[in-house]
Formats: sequence, C-alpha cells, structure tokens
Amino acid sequence: MTAWPTSSADEPEGSRLHFADRLAALVEERRSRLVLGLDPDPAALWPAALERIGAGGDGPHLARVRTAEAMVEHCRAAIVAAGPASVAVKLQLACFERLGAPGWDALEQVAAIGRDHGLLVIADGKRGDVPVTAGAYAQALVGVTPGPFGAVDGLAVDAFTANPLLGRDALEPLVEAAAAAGAGCFVLVRTSNPGAAELQDEGDPPLHERLARLVDELGASHVGAGGLSSVGAVTAATRPDHLGRLRELMPRAVFLLPGVGPQGGRPKDLGPAFAPHPAAGLVTASRAIVNAHAERGGDPASAAEEAAEELRAAAWNL
Amino acid sequence: MTAWPTSSADEPEGSRLHFADRLAALVEERRSRLVLGLDPDPAALWPAALERIGAGGDGPHLARVRTAEAMVEHCRAAIVAAGPASVAVKLQLACFERLGAPGWDALEQVAAIGRDHGLLVIADGKRGDVPVTAGAYAQALVGVTPGPFGAVDGLAVDAFTANPLLGRDALEPLVEAAAAAGAGCFVLVRTSNPGAAELQDEGDPPLHERLARLVDELGASHVGAGGLSSVGAVTAATRPDHLGRLRELMPRAVFLLPGVGPQGGRPKDLGPAFAPHPAAGLVTASRAIVNAHAERGGDPASAAEEAAEELRAAAWNL
Repeated sequence: MTAWPTSSADEPEGSRLHFADRLAALVEERRSRLVLGLDPDPAALWPAALERIGAGGDGPHLARVRTAEAMVEHCRAAIVAAGPASVAVKLQLACFERLGAPGWDALEQVAAIGRDHGLLVIADGKRGDVPVTAGAYAQALVGVTPGPFGAVDGLAVDAFTANPLLGRDALEPLVEAAAAAGAGCFVLVRTSNPGAAELQDEGDPPLHERLARLVDELGASHVGAGGLSSVGAVTAATRPDHLGRLRELMPRAVFLLPGVGPQGGRPKDLGPAFAPHPAAGLVTASRAIVNAHAERGGDPASAAEEAAEELRAAAWNL
Repeated sequence: MTAWPTSSADEPEGSRLHFADRLAALVEERRSRLVLGLDPDPAALWPAALERIGAGGDGPHLARVRTAEAMVEHCRAAIVAAGPASVAVKLQLACFERLGAPGWDALEQVAAIGRDHGLLVIADGKRGDVPVTAGAYAQALVGVTPGPFGAVDGLAVDAFTANPLLGRDALEPLVEAAAAAGAGCFVLVRTSNPGAAELQDEGDPPLHERLARLVDELGASHVGAGGLSSVGAVTAATRPDHLGRLRELMPRAVFLLPGVGPQGGRPKDLGPAFAPHPAAGLVTASRAIVNAHAERGGDPASAAEEAAEELRAAAWNL
C-alpha cells in the first residue's frame, strides 16, 4: 500500500496530486508498469465467482442483477490475484454497460475494489463527442454534475481513454476536466486492432502522427513535476515499429500499450515507449492475465498471479 | 400511431423489419424528417418536471435518484410536446451516464416512453472499440448478453451512433449486430463541431471522404426494400457544402444531420441529403426544440411543440 494520496470519490475536488506524478511514484514503488485489464465476459467468469452468488429466483431483472454480482466477484478475485504486480486496473466500460444499471453499479464497485488495493483506476470507454457532450462525459468520469437535488459525483477514476476523431475542441473538455481532478486522459493515437491501419496509418503524414501532435500540444500545459503530462496516448504494442516516431512526437506523454499477449505484442519490443521515464509506458494486459489458466492450467487465480508477475518482470527488466 | 411493428425489447430477436424500411414508412406517415434530440442537463430541466419529484431525504445517493427521476419527467414532457412532429428520439448517452446506475435506469425508461409514443429510438453514444469490445457495445445497444443466470437484454434501440476511428474490423460487429436486430448504425463521417475540420477535412482525399467510402462499403450488403441501407452516416448540417459530395459517395445511406438551430445549420441548405429518398436525411435538433422557450418565451412545452412543428415543416417542404 502506498502513503501518498490515492483517488477517492470522498476527497474534495482538486485535492489529488497530478496524475503522472502519482503514477510515477507507484511505478517506482511497485517496480511495475503493468495495467490489469478487466473486460469481464459473463459467459467466461471464474468459477469461484459464480459459487459466491446465491441461487433462487427467476426473471430478466434478477438475471441482470446476479450476473452483475458475479462480475464484481470475478473482478475482485482477479484484482486480488494480479493487483500486487500491477499499478492500475483498466475497466472496459462496454462489458459493464451491457448489464444496464446493475452493470453500472458493478463498475463503481470494481473501481472501489481497485482503489482499496492501491491501484489507479482507468475507465476504458474511448468516449468522444462535440464539446458540450464531451463535458457531460467528463462529469461522468472525473467530475461532478450540478443539479436541483444537489451535486452528483461521477466515477472519480484516475484516468480514462478518449477518442480524438472529433478534434481539438472536443478533446479539450475531457483534458481540462481530467487535469482539474488530478486525473489522466489517454487519447487514442494508434490502436491495436488489425483494421486500425486502414484509417490511422493513411495520409501524409499519417493520421496517427497528426493525432500524436495533437496529444503533445494538448498535454504541453499539463506537465507534472516529474516531466510527464496528464495527457497520454494509446499506442498499440502490436505495432512497435511506430513507437520510436510516436515517442519523438510525444516526449512527455505516458503511452498506454494494449495488445500484449494474445494479440501478439511483446514487452521486449516496447523500449521507445519506456525510454524517457520509468513511468512513460504502461503495458496493459487483459486476456493474457485473466484467461492465463486456459494455457497454463491450474486454477484461474494462481495462473493470473503467475502471468501478471511474469509480465511485470518482462516489462520492468528492459 | 403506426400499425407496423415498432421496436420492443419483448419481441424475439429478428422479428423487426429492416431499420430503413421502418424509418421510411414512419417518415411518409408523419410527413416528418425530424429527430428530437434529448440531452438532458440536470441544471436546466423544465420546471414542471421538477414539480413532479417528491422532496425530503438527503445524501448523495438520493440526489442521484431524484435527479434521474426528474430527468425522466423532463424527457417525457419533451416527447409529449415535440414527439408528434418527429419520427425518432435521439438520446445522448453521456447525459444519462453522468448519473450512474440511476441514470442508466432513466435512459431505459425514456427509451420506453419514446417507443410508446410511436418514435424510433436512437442511442447517441458514438461508441467504437476493438472488435471484441465493439461486440460488447453491440450487445448493450441492440443485442443480448449470454450468461450463467440467463440472457441479459440490451437497450433494444432502433439505431445508434458509432465512431469509425478504429477502422473497418471495429465497425463490423456493430453493423452486423444492428442488421441482425433490424436496427440502424449511424457512423460519424463529418461532425458538426468547429474543431471537426482539423482532422476530418485533412488529407487527400480528406478523411471524411475515406469514412464515407467505408460507410458505403459496409452498408452495401444491408440495403432494405426501399433502397436505403441500415448503415447511415452522421453528416453535419453546419457544413452543407460537403453534403453533395458525401451523397455521391454514399447514395444508399440515411444521413443523420446534427447542427440545426443554435449551431447554425438551416434545413433549406440540406437538399442533397434528402435527394435520393424522402427518408434519406434526418434533421436532429436538441436545444433548438427543448430550449425554444428561452427565445420564444412562454412555457417550455408549448415553445417546444411550436419549434418542432416549424422544423418539421421546414425540413419537409423542400
């Protein structure tokens, strides 16, 4: 556990230190650049999570509620197993949203469990919209919504992902709200899916370079004491050939690197991401940890713990 | 009210007709291409909506629940006032999400109210992610999530907006799930915010033309009996100069046209959007209807009813 302020929805706004400085301290303390990705699939929850949910009752509403409860237990077990090797937990909003309101409750519970285990919480929703709506997403993620019955707190996450297609004016409300809350905003620059190339690598300069310049410009006024900005970038571990150029264009950005494991990315290829600062690159792994038992055998928790520690070591000892 | 099948979460999957054919029938019947946008701001709800919410009690959870209840009443009143002039209601997911689980419950309730008033329901969330996650968003919006306690229904909306930045493989799960559910998918091509130009108009051909070609290709295998595809496009009413070229590139797409009213777009400039088919263009207006009383005076409901009818007529009589 750490001694400096971690995030909490109970703390007054603005009381948190700069996101990148909090991250850097945690990276040094845990000697880890690993982010535990949680994308819970109701059809593939760990058996132990299901055993903890009561039976009885029937009907569509109860199915949602019980599925959401099981999802929380699954995520709790994964955090207990793989959290100690990690600095953050990344929650895939789509997976929770598909359970409706009980899913959103589950999301809040899992975020709290992550915080209780000393992890930073990253909401992976890739939101993006016109400025007024981007402001509403910012309220949902890191802000507060004023209203006639009192202010409503958002998720109070430590960081979130954002989609930049709508441009600079649409990113600014997200970036500014994150900075005001001591949170980070990871902007998509080059994603890890095979189809990303068709749009993101096209143009001269390619679109991903335009996005990288935008990230660098937006982040310039939000640099922490350690030299890293609260405006980071999502850059695929599946395309390490881009990382050198992207690092040139974004010297102050924390790179969030998806695609390690089943998608083919390897920590040893990610050197340029980590070059400027120990906390300048974060390797995020989901299936490679949570489904590690499928390849390793054994119980899911032990397999996840082993896989997380191996990934932590691989990404640290470079 | 209409006689053909409208959407309902209770109907078995696949029972709905093609989205564009349902839309076309409704457009002809109501002589309307108007979409009522609901982006409820808790700080600007219609006073009548607040009067219907009980007082008493205190604390953060109650603030969320009461705010969500007031949001439902606000949206209900707006639908009663402006729904008859409209063919669809467009729900801005960000505005509901910021209230957490009670907000998601409110979203489901407002969708049901829209359906009860004979309107198609469009979820405006601009989701987009790698293929496996896009599949989870599709389950949340138009599908079903299998799980150990029974299947969990999604929102069962008639259409939704999607962000194409991640490319073709990331759009396909959304497009396919929409088609399977008799729903539509509106892909962002050129958004209405001033900052859109910096990225979407750059390149040769500009990015918005690349996106338009992608929409046309994805939509080619999902054309309904009336000649329109279930894969549509979001194209800004604020930049009517692009519409002719975009219509050339996407002859079968329904254009969802935001930006009329406060943002500067005028129905009379949108001719190319409507050219191929009466239902080929939908004008979406939010503040121009729901906040019409700010300019017109009078009570919000009467002002919204008048504004909606004027917009309906302006967009129909071209």
